[in-house]
Parts: sequence; C-alpha cells; structure tokens
Amino acid sequence: MRRPELYITGITGLPEISADASLGQLIAQGIRQAQIELQEKDVLVVAQKIVSKAEGRTIRLDSVTPSALACRWAEACQKDPRVMEVILSQTQRIVRMDRGILIAETEHSFVCANAGVDSSNSPPGEVLLLPRDPDASAARIRKELSEGFGVTLAVIISDSFGRPWRQGQVDVAIGVAGLDPLLDYRGFRDRFGRQMEATVIAVADELAGAAELVMGKTSEVPVALIRGVYFQSLNESARALVRPAEEDLFR
Amino acid sequence: MRRPELYITGITGLPEISADASLGQLIAQGIRQAQIELQEKDVLVVAQKIVSKAEGRTIRLDSVTPSALACRWAEACQKDPRVMEVILSQTQRIVRMDRGILIAETEHSFVCANAGVDSSNSPPGEVLLLPRDPDASAARIRKELSEGFGVTLAVIISDSFGRPWRQGQVDVAIGVAGLDPLLDYRGFRDRFGRQMEATVIAVADELAGAAELVMGKTSEVPVALIRGVYFQSLNESARALVRPAEEDLFR
Repeated sequence: MRRPELYITGITGLPEISADASLGQLIAQGIRQAQIELQEKDVLVVAQKIVSKAEGRTIRLDSVTPSALACRWAEACQKDPRVMEVILSQTQRIVRMDRGILIAETEHSFVCANAGVDSSNSPPGEVLLLPRDPDASAARIRKELSEGFGVTLAVIISDSFGRPWRQGQVDVAIGVAGLDPLLDYRGFRDRFGRQMEATVIAVADELAGAAELVMGKTSEVPVALIRGVYFQSLNESARALVRPAEEDLFR
Repeated sequence: MRRPELYITGITGLPEISADASLGQLIAQGIRQAQIELQEKDVLVVAQKIVSKAEGRTIRLDSVTPSALACRWAEACQKDPRVMEVILSQTQRIVRMDRGILIAETEHSFVCANAGVDSSNSPPGEVLLLPRDPDASAARIRKELSEGFGVTLAVIISDSFGRPWRQGQVDVAIGVAGLDPLLDYRGFRDRFGRQMEATVIAVADELAGAAELVMGKTSEVPVALIRGVYFQSLNESARALVRPAEEDLFR
C-alpha cells in the first residue's frame, strides 16, 4: 500500500489587510514569494481574521450605542457594553449565558463564544465580525487563486472555537469551497465485514485544526497550504458542519 | 521568517494486534519497514483501537449478563443490552440520554458517546473499551520507541469523538506522553500590544485530528508520524484537556 502523506506549510509575508483588499491576490503574492508551485487538489486554509478585515467587517466601538439590555448583560459578563451590543447584533439565539461566558448561535447557525465577535487582532477600539457568508468568501478566494494558478484548489476559512467538555480552542472550518466538509464512511464495511455505524468525519474541521499548527496565534501566518488530502466535492458548504438544532442534545 | 512546515505520514503494515502484543515493537517494525528515520521531537499518533487491543481491553459479549437497568435503557437506546451493560460499567456519570444517544463521562472524565465503548473494528460478539490509563499507554509506547531509536519522541493516543453543535466526528487526544496537550498564549501580546485573552490551543487535539487525515477509517493505518510540530513538555497528561465540571456549562 502506498504510504499516505500530508504536507502543510504556512504562507507568510502578507501585508496588514485593509478593507477591500483583494485577498486572493495577496495570497497569490505570498505563494509566489514562497516559490510554492500549487498542485491540483491543494487545500488552502485562510484565517477568518484576514477574511473579515478584507471584507470590512470591522466595527468601530465609538460608533456603537449600547441598548439598556446590552448594558445590563455587559455587566453580568464583564464586557464593554458596546462590545455586548455588537455581539447581540450578531446573535440569532443565546445558547448559554453564565459565569461571564456567552455562547451564542450566529446568523450562520454556528454556535460559539461571543457570536464570533473578536476583539483580539484588531486595533484598540475596534472589533471584528465573522464574514457575512464565509462559504462565499471561500468561493471568491478559490476562484481568484484557481484562475491565477490554473489549478483546481479547495479553500477553507478557519476560526478558533472553544468546545464543551474540553479545554483549549481548536481551529474549525466556518467556510469551505471546492471540498465536502464531511467525509461519510457509512456503508463502508469494517475489516470484519460489518457496516460501519455513525462514522462521518468532519475533515474540514480536522484540516482547519491541522493548519492552525503551522499558523499559530502570534506568528503572522494567516494562510496555510495543505497537500495530499483525500477529499470529495459534492456538498460544498460549511453549513453542513452545523448539527441541526433538532438533533442537538446541547442547545 | 522561516516558513513553518509540518509533515505527516501514515505507518502501515502492522499486523492484527492481539492482547499482550508489544505495541512499541510492532510500531518500531512498521517505522523501519517504511525506512523512516525518526528525528527529535517527532510526534507519533496511535489509534486507540490498537492500544486497547494490545492491552486486552476486549469484552466478549457472551460473558456479559445485563442488569435490569441495562435492559431497560438498552431498549430506549436501541442497543444490545449486553453492550449497554458494558457501557454503564465504564460510566462515571451520564451527561445525556436522549433520542437513542448516550453521552457519558468515562472513568477518565472524558465526555463522549457510549463511554468510549466501541463495537466497530472488533470481531462480532466483542466490544472494545478505552485503555485504562491512556497517558500511561502513551508513556509506555514512547519509552519503547525512544529507547529503540535513540531519539526523544512525543506520543498521542487518539480516538474519534463527536461534538455538540457540529456534525461529524474528529479525532482527539485521550492520552499523551512527552508533550503538553495545551499551548498557552495568554500573556503573549497581539500585534497591537494588547495582552491576548483566553487563547489556549488544544494542540494535542489538533495533532490527533491532523493524524486522522492520513489514518482514515478503513485504510488500515493505525499510526501516524508528525514532524515539525512546535510543542512544550511541561504538563504531560491528556487529563489537562478535560474541562473541569465546575467550569463546564454543558455538563
């Protein structure tokens, strides 16, 4: 059997991203500077924060007037009332609000802390929202890069999420293009000939987490290239990673 | 800046693992057959199922007499009452029992479906338990391999866990040796000079997930080697990945 291999490298040297930057072009520059030859089925993982910045998803806090509700909850959660106001504006439903922690369902149906509103990695006085449609963001970057390099790529937009029960954050996929985020082994047979039960792997989340290992948090590596991944491209939306509320025991 | 790189490869060709197999020796054989030269700080990820098999953590169902409770709950969860009996024997606390799904806290305090009891990948009529002490399992394998190859390795024992809110399973770390499962960025400053808040990354889980990408589910690759990882080795226990119950909003 051929030995399965995966190679992951960080793309460095991107400038500070401003609103309306062409992210595809900047990533392409980084790839050329690194003298990397893209190949068919390479996967690019792009950190949410640069996608949000390029899409102008920055909110200046001095433009925000917190409601009475935001002020009350901000106190309970020990947050800036204006940040709380922004969080609530991004929230479809509150899953838990307890012990200073706010777990919210975003408009995209992702469940995460603070509805994905991020006050690290943006200048003081500003917060960053998630991209409005991270699948579309991924598709745009994919189109620009695929055309620029003449190869068919997959693109994942990643963000760091906490998890119930387990300490520490891991990067997960919030947008995908050109790749099915789930790999379904149901119907395959195990080595004893039995049908495998309930084995659907969230490959896009594993890829996002693997990319984080080279991207890190402080090292200014906002993009990673992963080569050697087996993936399919049937259902191309990170929404497939969201467990429907009616099947979820923890919402 | 030096471009960060990660390389992951699967170790193939291990025989079917029997109880009391020397897993370290079998993995060493696989590594030699693949003509891989181990290097300092290489990380080996080993699938829980072969660890459990080598440690004889197999239960023959015909040896199990289900209690009345197990029978009643088995019906509700549509499981074999004997499998339910085994699950309950591995359970410290039930987190949820609903819609045919049993989420349980194991004796190691991991929260997962069916207390980690696995009926796939073992012969019909048998189920596989988690290793009794997965950190100790990792430490044993690490010792054998580090001595055998004369390099200092880290070892992770991985298993596939489901997650609330997100579809699909991902591999996570249930045992570690030689590596701190969490990487703590708190106290680091972001590019705007602000202290970073709440950024602790579960690197061992990201490594386990990355390894899954080459291990797969049907491809008979029970071990993966990861090279190029930045990690520390202060607190070497996967228990550090368990969020204390009193800080957990979903238990």
